[in-house]
Amino acid sequence: MKRERERKSMKKRIVQIDSKLQFLKMLFNPETKAGRVFEIIVMIAIALSLIVAFLETNRTIAIVFKDVLTVMEYVLTFFFTVEYILRVYCSEKPKDYIFSFFGIVDLLATLPLYLSLIPFLASTRYLFIIRAFRLIRIFRVLRLFAFINEGYLLLQSLKLSFNKIMVYFLFVLILVTIIGTVMYMVEGQLPNTQFTDIPTSIYWAIVTLTTVGYGDITPVTRVGQFLSGFVMILGYTIIAIPTGIVSATMIDETKKRGKNGRCPRCNERTDLKANYCKHCGERL
Amino acid sequence: MKRERERKSMKKRIVQIDSKLQFLKMLFNPETKAGRVFEIIVMIAIALSLIVAFLETNRTIAIVFKDVLTVMEYVLTFFFTVEYILRVYCSEKPKDYIFSFFGIVDLLATLPLYLSLIPFLASTRYLFIIRAFRLIRIFRVLRLFAFINEGYLLLQSLKLSFNKIMVYFLFVLILVTIIGTVMYMVEGQLPNTQFTDIPTSIYWAIVTLTTVGYGDITPVTRVGQFLSGFVMILGYTIIAIPTGIVSATMIDETKKRGKNGRCPRCNERTDLKANYCKHCGERL
Amino acid sequence: MKRERERKSMKKRIVQIDSKLQFLKMLFNPETKAGRVFEIIVMIAIALSLIVAFLETNRTIAIVFKDVLTVMEYVLTFFFTVEYILRVYCSEKPKDYIFSFFGIVDLLATLPLYLSLIPFLASTRYLFIIRAFRLIRIFRVLRLFAFINEGYLLLQSLKLSFNKIMVYFLFVLILVTIIGTVMYMVEGQLPNTQFTDIPTSIYWAIVTLTTVGYGDITPVTRVGQFLSGFVMILGYTIIAIPTGIVSATMIDETKKRGKNGRCPRCNERTDLKANYCKHCGERL
Amino acid sequence: MKRERERKSMKKRIVQIDSKLQFLKMLFNPETKAGRVFEIIVMIAIALSLIVAFLETNRTIAIVFKDVLTVMEYVLTFFFTVEYILRVYCSEKPKDYIFSFFGIVDLLATLPLYLSLIPFLASTRYLFIIRAFRLIRIFRVLRLFAFINEGYLLLQSLKLSFNKIMVYFLFVLILVTIIGTVMYMVEGQLPNTQFTDIPTSIYWAIVTLTTVGYGDITPVTRVGQFLSGFVMILGYTIIAIPTGIVSATMIDETKKRGKNGRCPRCNERTDLKANYCKHCGERL
Repeated sequence: MKRERERKSMKKRIVQIDSKLQFLKMLFNPETKAGRVFEIIVMIAIALSLIVAFLETNRTIAIVFKDVLTVMEYVLTFFFTVEYILRVYCSEKPKDYIFSFFGIVDLLATLPLYLSLIPFLASTRYLFIIRAFRLIRIFRVLRLFAFINEGYLLLQSLKLSFNKIMVYFLFVLILVTIIGTVMYMVEGQLPNTQFTDIPTSIYWAIVTLTTVGYGDITPVTRVGQFLSGFVMILGYTIIAIPTGIVSATMIDETKKRGKNGRCPRCNERTDLKANYCKHCGERL
Repeated sequence: MKRERERKSMKKRIVQIDSKLQFLKMLFNPETKAGRVFEIIVMIAIALSLIVAFLETNRTIAIVFKDVLTVMEYVLTFFFTVEYILRVYCSEKPKDYIFSFFGIVDLLATLPLYLSLIPFLASTRYLFIIRAFRLIRIFRVLRLFAFINEGYLLLQSLKLSFNKIMVYFLFVLILVTIIGTVMYMVEGQLPNTQFTDIPTSIYWAIVTLTTVGYGDITPVTRVGQFLSGFVMILGYTIIAIPTGIVSATMIDETKKRGKNGRCPRCNERTDLKANYCKHCGERL
Repeated sequence: MKRERERKSMKKRIVQIDSKLQFLKMLFNPETKAGRVFEIIVMIAIALSLIVAFLETNRTIAIVFKDVLTVMEYVLTFFFTVEYILRVYCSEKPKDYIFSFFGIVDLLATLPLYLSLIPFLASTRYLFIIRAFRLIRIFRVLRLFAFINEGYLLLQSLKLSFNKIMVYFLFVLILVTIIGTVMYMVEGQLPNTQFTDIPTSIYWAIVTLTTVGYGDITPVTRVGQFLSGFVMILGYTIIAIPTGIVSATMIDETKKRGKNGRCPRCNERTDLKANYCKHCGERL
Repeated sequence: MKRERERKSMKKRIVQIDSKLQFLKMLFNPETKAGRVFEIIVMIAIALSLIVAFLETNRTIAIVFKDVLTVMEYVLTFFFTVEYILRVYCSEKPKDYIFSFFGIVDLLATLPLYLSLIPFLASTRYLFIIRAFRLIRIFRVLRLFAFINEGYLLLQSLKLSFNKIMVYFLFVLILVTIIGTVMYMVEGQLPNTQFTDIPTSIYWAIVTLTTVGYGDITPVTRVGQFLSGFVMILGYTIIAIPTGIVSATMIDETKKRGKNGRCPRCNERTDLKANYCKHCGERL
């Protein structure tokens, strides 16, 4: 009888713990309503902590609002620490979470303050680097992308177009190297030229081809201006090519899958490159 | 007999009023010819009133042409007031119009002059704010968009792509925050640096990534120039992604509906996202 | 007998004239080989005459090379005059040609030199305007576009997208008006501000939204920089919308017609908007 | 018997040579693993040699690191020479390789150092030109493009869109000529104007229309600013047209062929414009 009672009480406790766990799991699952609210609170906390970190780099603000900024940093770090511990505690496979990209980012996001409390590291030099670490929190925002439909689409598009974009990147790099060298030959021999060496000329070529146009380095000779004009129209025109390629890819993929990237049978999100739904095996 | 005559005279008057109303309704319905002409007159009046408001901000012009500008403002405000009253008078559900977006804009567009006549508000400080109100008239131009086929298409595309554009906006925001912080670490420690704090560095990152390139803040170190070059090519290249996504969406939608966004059965305009025509229920 | 001989001689002359005419017609028909060669010669002549006109605006060059430039202008004008007369002479419906767009352009292209020889118009003031007329020759280059396959495609695309582009143009115009006014309120009250009045602020808004970024007017306040950053990312992002719309239109049209815009039956060029081939009536 | 032995020994040697050749061929065939590793080594060597060439143009670096740069140049040239000889040696049709584009580039890439050793050419004047020759090495990187799937796609897209891009290039050229001339008429008559002659005005028009916006030449009159604003929005808007055309072409082609540009039967790469696979004759 005692045993029976014990078993019952244990079962009850398990249910209690289980229901707490359930609530926490709900909190960390952005597909529930509580999860979405919590996600928004975390995002606000991250934004606040980034603003604190940015304002501290401005000397006037750093001195005038010192106390406010310090208190906010303590509160936010405490919040992130509790959140991290709970996330580890209630994940089904803690190891998987701890060593995942977001797990490491979440951990690193809590460390800066604790490290700055260690006397050995509290010198100005190290503090600068430790504070820079706080920037890592911005990567946590990326988590959001995976849960918004449009963010998911953007990430998938990035993944899908990454190689094409990289190759175009390389293509532009080769182009600016050639243009920069030619320009150095045209304007580099003049006295008081701004094209002092080839790396500077390549920097100018990038500024011009990408249509940024700072104007810190500009050609002064007729031939130089003629060449720049050519480079500008080239940069303005060839942008159509990666756009065309990416458009063609996106259209090819959206056609296969419908615009939401969801399986037509189980309505779960699918990888854009997958041929079968990873949730129900439906042929896409 | 008298009663009969009375009824006839009343009927006649009703017909007369009705025909006047009919004319006004025609005037405010841009799908009739009179309506389109009236719409153009209103647009010209709005353009004129905006030009008057803009020229008044230039001191020389404001003094030299004071009388002309004042008279024009009076005439145009009178025109807008009459138009507003008539629009309320001849709309079928006046309340719906008054509290609609365009109803409020139309009302606000008439107020500035009347407010500036109240002695209490005629001080210079308030006048500045009251005059700024006149800008609201520009939103009236948006009404035009809903009636041109291409404007309608643009508005629908904006609605359709809004989420995607917003997410890309957020993505760029995160990117420039990261780039700005990294750049602050590279160039922020130099004496006489232009990268005085992280917000300024982020401003620079936006100017560079979006290929605007004012040139008010430029990198001076080799590492800084190298990094800027990277950011420029990145900004020049990743623009292909939102373009590809939006193209894919637009093509997907145009295919479903034909390019005019009109129902194939009743030839009425349909919402781009709708699955059924909202006028005749035809499956799209 | 005499009559017979006369008729024969007349016939012979007609054949001779006809063969000369035939050659001229061939010369002005860019679909024959002779026509294409002649077209290239005309293009070179136009390019030369434009270069002459441009170089004359530079004072040093105008004085040093005066004789060469004058002789070239005479030779080229003579060439254009002969060409114009021949074109009128051998066109089937001279009136149609003379009053067509290209006919008027061709005529205007020959006039400047003759007008400058009239003593009454030879004063410096008039000469400047007369010389400016020579620019009109550049429109003759557009004729080329109609005969290159890709140029034809570009012109058709322009025609097809014109309304959409115009509406987007209008949309951008409204946007920069709003942005310019808001910016004037933010930065216009400062002493020594560069945002002196609303038209100047709108000019700044255009420079920023279109990602041109001269840097002649830049914000100095924090709020101003924040707002500019927003405008820049906006301009960088919304460019995806017209691109998407135009892409969707182009794809819709190319699908209907094949990429060359040629009729599948008679292989003649067709209008992109046409539903039937204008040469053989084939349904497209 | 002796003959038999001789034949055997010869056969053995042939096999040995053959196996050596086989290894070399494998080395120069980027579709084998050894080939890919070797390709990467060559790319690194090219990158190094370009960096050496670029750094030498900076006077301070050229003096401080003179010895290191000289030794590196000798080592790399030796490497390129050996590679060139081996490539000729083990190619099946040496003539085809030697006179191919990449054959000539590979040869020219090795020459600069040898030429600079000839006393006659060792004067400073010639040295500058000889050193410039080293830039040619960058074209060797293009070989890489042909073997990466995405690079191949980019090259094919370039080929496919080349005419369209060229025509748009020409179109922009005509546009900026017209804009430049008009602007010269507006601002060119002012004292101290920056629009000194038409070529300079065209240079400004290019800088503005392509949204580069150096800011070295800016309009100062109201009319000039108004016109620039128009040019900017025009440049910002019409970029949608080539993008739309290229997108339409790319989509049309990808649809025909699948995104990898590979034959569905033999899985070999095909030309994007081809109607039949050039490897197995499969209809595409």
